[in-house]
Amino acid sequence: MSAILFDLDGVLYESDSAIDGAADTVNWFNKNHIPHLFLTNTTSKSRAELITKLAGFGIESKIENFLTPPVAAKQWLQKNNINNIALFVPDTTGKEFSDFNIASDEDKNVGAVVVGDLGERWTFAMMNKIFTTLIENPQAKLIALGMTRYWKTASGLQLDVGPMIKAFEYASGVDAIVTGKPATEFFQAALSLLGETKNVVMIGDDIRGDIEAAQRAGLRAIQVRTGKFSESDLASGITADAILDSVAALPGWWQKNM
Amino acid sequence: MSAILFDLDGVLYESDSAIDGAADTVNWFNKNHIPHLFLTNTTSKSRAELITKLAGFGIESKIENFLTPPVAAKQWLQKNNINNIALFVPDTTGKEFSDFNIASDEDKNVGAVVVGDLGERWTFAMMNKIFTTLIENPQAKLIALGMTRYWKTASGLQLDVGPMIKAFEYASGVDAIVTGKPATEFFQAALSLLGETKNVVMIGDDIRGDIEAAQRAGLRAIQVRTGKFSESDLASGITADAILDSVAALPGWWQKNM
Repeated sequence: MSAILFDLDGVLYESDSAIDGAADTVNWFNKNHIPHLFLTNTTSKSRAELITKLAGFGIESKIENFLTPPVAAKQWLQKNNINNIALFVPDTTGKEFSDFNIASDEDKNVGAVVVGDLGERWTFAMMNKIFTTLIENPQAKLIALGMTRYWKTASGLQLDVGPMIKAFEYASGVDAIVTGKPATEFFQAALSLLGETKNVVMIGDDIRGDIEAAQRAGLRAIQVRTGKFSESDLASGITADAILDSVAALPGWWQKNM
Repeated sequence: MSAILFDLDGVLYESDSAIDGAADTVNWFNKNHIPHLFLTNTTSKSRAELITKLAGFGIESKIENFLTPPVAAKQWLQKNNINNIALFVPDTTGKEFSDFNIASDEDKNVGAVVVGDLGERWTFAMMNKIFTTLIENPQAKLIALGMTRYWKTASGLQLDVGPMIKAFEYASGVDAIVTGKPATEFFQAALSLLGETKNVVMIGDDIRGDIEAAQRAGLRAIQVRTGKFSESDLASGITADAILDSVAALPGWWQKNM
């Protein structure tokens, strides 16, 4: 049994355009009943919104085919029997945690502090609240929904969740559990969802976040020459198991190699 | 030629009370014309305010005897011929930088971004401004006025400058130059102020911030059993060059050992 993990942005599409052949490739895996997951660090879109976006490119997907940081966080919390959580995430992401008990401010039995990018909702008071929740609940785990450094808004660059997590780690002395690429745990969550730990291949455009990270988790990794691929990746010291012009070449590669 | 570096809080006083014998010890060094500096990470008090505080304990001091993070930052900037700076520091500290040109928001020739604890002035917009200043001025150094994790306010624990610096470092990829304890550069600034690099002794209460840090900078270090000293320090793996009951015992030690 084998399976494929698709990165989204840069592999199946680039901003609002599909990569040529992306729909045919995903449909080929569907037709051949080869298990697959879509792996993305996006937290600004819910899985339902991602399904709609892919459908616009002629790509069929189901909610259970997505692994996003909130989904991985949820899975990690359930595996570790943590039900009482303090939640600091964007509204689109909050829905994913409806099965959990959300701790009140006075609660001293918080099992985990879950932090995503709050965008314009970040304030110094909010940062202090996250920090003091960690200090007042020394048993609590710190769960980071990704470690993205920054992103481009209409008004310029803006800090994302990663720098905030670094601040909380340093202040509290607690190391975060990162439920997103490039964390090994994120790929392990994918394997766990697939119920399949052998012959799993990741296809991505990011030499570090996709290729190096997947290989470190024990997977094979194929890099595409689309998205953020750069010729300098070839001299990075990281060697993909294969390099394809685009995701369109994946079925051909698969038939030869898997 | 020899010289002594005094830590303040925990060595000469504990919050608002002098340590017994502190004034006599400092006066003994004055009387014997042994050069000395007061080393502190405090940025909430200007040097003039520290002089007043020490005077209240009967300890005489002059402005040129203090090394604080802003003073060390100033010295580092001058040594590196950096005159155009972006300044994000508390008002008490701002005065120390009156010799420098303060860059405007549009300036693309910022030589250094100096960051201290802004307390209640921290906002997400301010954090983004510091981050984008670093990104838009790739030549700029990031100067951290200390790396304190948090402090206790009337309304509870509050993040200090250290976590913020960690956030900016991660987001921008720039490593901060820390002009405060425990950075080696801070002790080097002290040596530079003294014009004296041999036989310099640090006396402090903090096994890491004072003792380990001074020894790493090539100094001898004496720990006192006052302030934040704890018996567990003796099992920390860090060995002070001497341990004294308090700063009162320093003249006696000095006459025997220096």
